[in-house]
Amino acid sequence: MTIKLEPDERLDDLHRNGYKIIQNSKKFCFGMDAVLLSGFATVKPGENALDLGTGTGIIPILLEAKTKGQHFTGLEIQEESADMARRSVAYNGLEEKIDIVTGDIREASKLFGAASFDVITTNPPYMTGSHGIVNPDMPKAIARHEVLCTLDDVVREASKLLKSGGRFYMVHRPFRLAEIMATMMKYKLEPKRMRLVYPFVDKEPNMVLIEALRGGRPRITVEKPLIVYKEKDVYTDEIYEVYGY
Amino acid sequence: MTIKLEPDERLDDLHRNGYKIIQNSKKFCFGMDAVLLSGFATVKPGENALDLGTGTGIIPILLEAKTKGQHFTGLEIQEESADMARRSVAYNGLEEKIDIVTGDIREASKLFGAASFDVITTNPPYMTGSHGIVNPDMPKAIARHEVLCTLDDVVREASKLLKSGGRFYMVHRPFRLAEIMATMMKYKLEPKRMRLVYPFVDKEPNMVLIEALRGGRPRITVEKPLIVYKEKDVYTDEIYEVYGY
Repeated sequence: MTIKLEPDERLDDLHRNGYKIIQNSKKFCFGMDAVLLSGFATVKPGENALDLGTGTGIIPILLEAKTKGQHFTGLEIQEESADMARRSVAYNGLEEKIDIVTGDIREASKLFGAASFDVITTNPPYMTGSHGIVNPDMPKAIARHEVLCTLDDVVREASKLLKSGGRFYMVHRPFRLAEIMATMMKYKLEPKRMRLVYPFVDKEPNMVLIEALRGGRPRITVEKPLIVYKEKDVYTDEIYEVYGY
Repeated sequence: MTIKLEPDERLDDLHRNGYKIIQNSKKFCFGMDAVLLSGFATVKPGENALDLGTGTGIIPILLEAKTKGQHFTGLEIQEESADMARRSVAYNGLEEKIDIVTGDIREASKLFGAASFDVITTNPPYMTGSHGIVNPDMPKAIARHEVLCTLDDVVREASKLLKSGGRFYMVHRPFRLAEIMATMMKYKLEPKRMRLVYPFVDKEPNMVLIEALRGGRPRITVEKPLIVYKEKDVYTDEIYEVYGY
């Protein structure tokens, strides 16, 4: 299949089913966080999943490749990103499996209806207004900073959108862990599984993966550490595996 | 100095300042959790610290050895443990530095007065009623299960007892992490520092160390992993160091 790329766009190989993704390095490219989330989340046969703030659609496309889920939806507020995501879905022939919807996370439960998904994933903006300087380039700023939605918005809407017993998967930064847990519990999303991602075995973690259960009972499993590099520039076996190399 | 030990009591070396501690293996002996907490907590010159549920006094005795804190208090509800703690304090000649008080954690803020400590430490019972079988041997049951106080009781009293800006240090089990964070935030103890203790680098953590700040602002530092064994039966260097070998 041939594809027409816009200026500054590129087509990257996802090492899964031959899938590729359109990205624009002047706007925003997916990072290891999205890839690790797609390895951490499970979508079971027959289940439908929604990704909140899907950007270029990396998470629905990887989850379609890695799981037996029935249907995937990506919600994205920036039309330019949503358009890239739709073209990637088409390029990979996934129009029947993945919908990309342009819309606002803060209105998501009105858009899709309450209790309408089995699984919700999200790689939301990590930075609050007070942490770091807001990138003046809007697409990157919106993806990285809580400009258009806050952690509270994302968790609240996820809770409304999930069926009872549905699962919520989020990747975030460890510095907000206490707030994440308290916000989840406030909205009846009980944290059930957590994994910290350490760049090296002797360094602080820079990502946290969390699974929460809509209406679950308190008890969390903290998993073994996910270590990214075994030495400088050499990934651990687990990272090579999640990337599909 | 000579010491009279009761039946089943023994005198253990703490590898710090020549200090020793009286324990009774039929009752309850301190574990690695108390030792790691004493290495995780800081007590600065001039500060006074309280240990909630001090047992045989292991935490105040180790903190007196390791820090420049001015005064240490241990609160213990079981008279038999408190008596062992007092005899250990006397044996080590620490009567001027450490007080052991017999009393109930649930009444601690009435006993000592609000905002009366700079630092509070605790190695509380880990198990709720529904987790594991309550040990029928009472001293062990009280130390391990929430028979006489709950997590909520401990955090609530710690919050009342701390001065504004005071620090709370707790060791607990990771399976209760979400509840711990939410309870701390409920009582204005903001989690600021956390470290997970992994028995091996490829295993789930079995302890979590947390520092919270009375009236602090949200932002937590998750520290590098604390790994206990580098191979079977061989501690990592960090564990040897915290034990003072």
